[in-house]
Amino acid sequence: MASYQAPLRDMRFVLNDVFRAGEEWVAMPGTAEVTPDLADAILEEGARVTWAELFPLNQSGDAEGCHFDAGRVTTPKGFKEAQRTLAEGGWFGLGGNPEYGGQGMPKLLTVAFEEMLYATNTSFALYPALNTGAALLLDHHATDAIKRTYLPRMYAGEWLGSMCLTEPHCGTDLGLIKTRAVPNVDGDTYAITGSKIWITGGEHDMVDNIVHLVLAKLPDAPEGTRGISLFLVPKRKVGADGEAGEPNSVVCGGLEHKMGIKGSATCVMHFEAAEGMLIGEPHQGLAAMFTMMNYERLSIGIQGLGLGEVAYQSAMDFARERLQSRAPNGPAAPDRPADPILVHPDVRRMALNVRAWNEGGRAFAAFVAQQLDRVKFHPEEGVRDEAQALVALLTPVAKAFLTDRGFDATVEAQQVYGGNGYCVEWGAEQYVRDARIAMIYEGTNGIQAMDLVGRKLFRNRGAYVTCLLALIRGDLETLDKQEVSDFKQAVQQEAERLGRVTDELLERADGRPEELGAAAVDYLNLTGHVVYAWLWLKMAIAAQAGLDGQGTAGERFYRSKLAVGRHFINRMLPRTEALERQIRAGAKPLMTMDDEDFMFTG
Amino acid sequence: MASYQAPLRDMRFVLNDVFRAGEEWVAMPGTAEVTPDLADAILEEGARVTWAELFPLNQSGDAEGCHFDAGRVTTPKGFKEAQRTLAEGGWFGLGGNPEYGGQGMPKLLTVAFEEMLYATNTSFALYPALNTGAALLLDHHATDAIKRTYLPRMYAGEWLGSMCLTEPHCGTDLGLIKTRAVPNVDGDTYAITGSKIWITGGEHDMVDNIVHLVLAKLPDAPEGTRGISLFLVPKRKVGADGEAGEPNSVVCGGLEHKMGIKGSATCVMHFEAAEGMLIGEPHQGLAAMFTMMNYERLSIGIQGLGLGEVAYQSAMDFARERLQSRAPNGPAAPDRPADPILVHPDVRRMALNVRAWNEGGRAFAAFVAQQLDRVKFHPEEGVRDEAQALVALLTPVAKAFLTDRGFDATVEAQQVYGGNGYCVEWGAEQYVRDARIAMIYEGTNGIQAMDLVGRKLFRNRGAYVTCLLALIRGDLETLDKQEVSDFKQAVQQEAERLGRVTDELLERADGRPEELGAAAVDYLNLTGHVVYAWLWLKMAIAAQAGLDGQGTAGERFYRSKLAVGRHFINRMLPRTEALERQIRAGAKPLMTMDDEDFMFTG
Repeated sequence: MASYQAPLRDMRFVLNDVFRAGEEWVAMPGTAEVTPDLADAILEEGARVTWAELFPLNQSGDAEGCHFDAGRVTTPKGFKEAQRTLAEGGWFGLGGNPEYGGQGMPKLLTVAFEEMLYATNTSFALYPALNTGAALLLDHHATDAIKRTYLPRMYAGEWLGSMCLTEPHCGTDLGLIKTRAVPNVDGDTYAITGSKIWITGGEHDMVDNIVHLVLAKLPDAPEGTRGISLFLVPKRKVGADGEAGEPNSVVCGGLEHKMGIKGSATCVMHFEAAEGMLIGEPHQGLAAMFTMMNYERLSIGIQGLGLGEVAYQSAMDFARERLQSRAPNGPAAPDRPADPILVHPDVRRMALNVRAWNEGGRAFAAFVAQQLDRVKFHPEEGVRDEAQALVALLTPVAKAFLTDRGFDATVEAQQVYGGNGYCVEWGAEQYVRDARIAMIYEGTNGIQAMDLVGRKLFRNRGAYVTCLLALIRGDLETLDKQEVSDFKQAVQQEAERLGRVTDELLERADGRPEELGAAAVDYLNLTGHVVYAWLWLKMAIAAQAGLDGQGTAGERFYRSKLAVGRHFINRMLPRTEALERQIRAGAKPLMTMDDEDFMFTG
Repeated sequence: MASYQAPLRDMRFVLNDVFRAGEEWVAMPGTAEVTPDLADAILEEGARVTWAELFPLNQSGDAEGCHFDAGRVTTPKGFKEAQRTLAEGGWFGLGGNPEYGGQGMPKLLTVAFEEMLYATNTSFALYPALNTGAALLLDHHATDAIKRTYLPRMYAGEWLGSMCLTEPHCGTDLGLIKTRAVPNVDGDTYAITGSKIWITGGEHDMVDNIVHLVLAKLPDAPEGTRGISLFLVPKRKVGADGEAGEPNSVVCGGLEHKMGIKGSATCVMHFEAAEGMLIGEPHQGLAAMFTMMNYERLSIGIQGLGLGEVAYQSAMDFARERLQSRAPNGPAAPDRPADPILVHPDVRRMALNVRAWNEGGRAFAAFVAQQLDRVKFHPEEGVRDEAQALVALLTPVAKAFLTDRGFDATVEAQQVYGGNGYCVEWGAEQYVRDARIAMIYEGTNGIQAMDLVGRKLFRNRGAYVTCLLALIRGDLETLDKQEVSDFKQAVQQEAERLGRVTDELLERADGRPEELGAAAVDYLNLTGHVVYAWLWLKMAIAAQAGLDGQGTAGERFYRSKLAVGRHFINRMLPRTEALERQIRAGAKPLMTMDDEDFMFTG
């Protein structure tokens, strides 16, 4: 059956041994109060509350799904109560701005909590994830009056946010949206009219009010994406007293029937001259929305990680219990009718694959989180700038690579179960279904790859990649442990590969934009592999230091860490060779075939 | 929405241009009557009947599923009528033994029809697939009396077969089965007692009788797999008149709730001193069952292929209609608000990935089918022996590689849709769910890989691989077309790689059986890639010959074939480099970590 404990030992390793969170926090004014003890208490309590409140609702929520009746959406049994408990525990405002009632915890800590949310109940996790992103957007772009009214409620989990972008005819290409915003006679508000689809948490029964952030076009809007504005449209209008009052003209038209995340209400939303407030400047809505989208992109990456982790733990529970055949070198459990399947090399190979992705992903998410904290809190401009470059470069990689690998992890974990993995009761198949959406929404992984090679690579002629490679090379020069020279050698080789491929691609794509599209997904994959390899080097050094320093206390943990890292280096990293060759294959072979020849011709 | 036409043009290309089916058939006494016209008529009518009868029931069957009520199973609406129509059309006996009412069509032809079955409705396809395998088993191992009674009914689709192997505590390790067979006092029949799970078509409402082939142990059975016997246990006892009479003591205890193939009844079956007849010799049941299992393994491979094809066609329909963003070099459809997404290099890359797997898989299935026909029909012993070696070697590869690639294909096709791919109504997500099981049942793909490296490689010290490589090298020496020298060079290199890796593995595994397990899945993957590359060379030569020979009639088809083949060679085949390195990584790193360290330690 499904099994999960938050991987606190590994989270602490990443925070403390690899990223030296304590030293980092104490050095930045905004995080100086985050002591290691406080951080640890938050992780412990986060692990407890997600395990106790959310994990038991995961399979039942999938089986039941959300209900729609005449515009009202009911979440699965128990969701509402769990939401209340988490809200009362302060979990909806964990990273929020303290000026408006948030707890101001650093991202390096909140990503660990997000992983627990997604691992225990991905459908549920999406409600706080959207809320956190919406609050972040308002904190960046709204007026103080709006912030004072909305943020404390959102941090308290009394009202929850939603993100309304997609319309039936457009998702990726938001320049095509048809939703209109017309100024009301009050001179202050706008009448928003249009239909949005795939709105996560667009309507539900968990809270009194829903804070919709809606993209729409003003009457004088320029064509395309430069004519999009952003509006706050509450489900219930908020009076001068700050309380939710009469209903706004926002109607849920129905729910999507989906492959997974069935406890998450994916809504069709109709805005019928609904009252909204402009957030930020007219026509600058997409840029503002990106504050939220970038947050969600990392968050969705963590969805992949969380699902990979719970899938791993559950599969290992099965592999320890299931008896089938004998170990290759003779019985491992001679007193039983067969050996636990974990004795088989191929089962161990699958397990190590999953684990190498998960632990690499955990370090990757933490690294990006650390950069986000530096952007926000670090006193030195140079550090902030470097961190900003890394965040820009790695956000699409975090979204796409972590979700691709998360999906692979759930599929590989499902395979460990044999036929049981296909039967609903064991839970493994739900993880696959729930993980699949993460590669699609929040910008498909193909779109992330285009963002990477376009905005984040070509537009600045590789400056961000140069920044990343300088960091890696700096580590290669300064970090030293004879025992992990195999890691170092691999990273050396892969950093060279990424540099070489980058230079070639920039040259080839000059005046030939189709070259970027043809290389995008493979280039993102290559970048992901290289960064994971580098992070595995950092982890290996930390694990080796742990082994050298502390006797037997953490010995098993550190030895396992090194074994998993070597599995990554020897069994997974070799794929980069193929990725380099695939990138080099270029656009021409993709573009020469006629469109018609892609179609079926009987 | 879902879209499918049987790929008759490509099927004809494979049959006629690549494998010269007509010449082959006319040269073998058992197939001499299969004229190209007859073959073509069968393909055409097969395409029509599956499209008209099965395809419309695919999504509705998934939504409705099977029903269980007090031991009775009802299939989804329309299944029973479709079964009747196909049965009356003779489709259940297409490859059956003509002595007992079958039509004796060669496998090279029936695999094409099987692909159509799986493409249009995988859940439905499993009923005839199990029946065909059961009939094949009886034809090989049953007495003439049993064959005369059962085969005509099974070929007519009046009775259908099932395959009862797995028990709750064992699937892979059949030596552990507990089902018992005790001789009855009549001296002729046996009383079968035990429970079986995951029995596809174990109970349903489509026909009057179900012919269960059941593995059980006789009282004096030796331990393990050498003590398994095979029994025919009909749902209703068959009288001397050959008619189904009183019910046997066979009870369906329930249905599994599964990720997909929801229209396929996956049953728990209880045999309560049910009357059965021994098939073949006592204790030799597993060997006899392998006649059926080997059939099913190729068939399940074709499930992957069929689903990959329907997923491709449906995705291309979407990609042609969906307008989003502009082509990288400027508008392709300037009069429309955006371009069809097929203009984007990354969408084309995904499309070509899927297509390269599908077309390679179609050729692979046909190649194995041709060898099966030679084993059965060819007059020369040497040819039969070579074909038998190739069938033995390639059956696990066909099962695992085609289903792995079929799953990849459905996932990649789903990605083309963006968010629509995750919504049930578009059908793309069902293909993913239906394809996932093919990697698990009929022996997981890990078990197929163990069969490959153990029985089919190590046990004969690589003799079968040597046979395959000789065939490939023979082609490299004799086939010549300057225009496809790039294909030839790639195959040359990959054949060398497979030879090198095989030699190394055989040496390393000597006395170290865990080395086989550690290499198994990667070795199977490598073999699959190499065989596909070789078949792509054969296809490229046939396409080039077509281009050279026939002017413009088939020009577009042949040019596309070459383009897809080059996509395979340049974009997909490079993975073999990593596979070689992964195989070389060996068993030790997998085996050194303690079992406990695989478990979660908080």
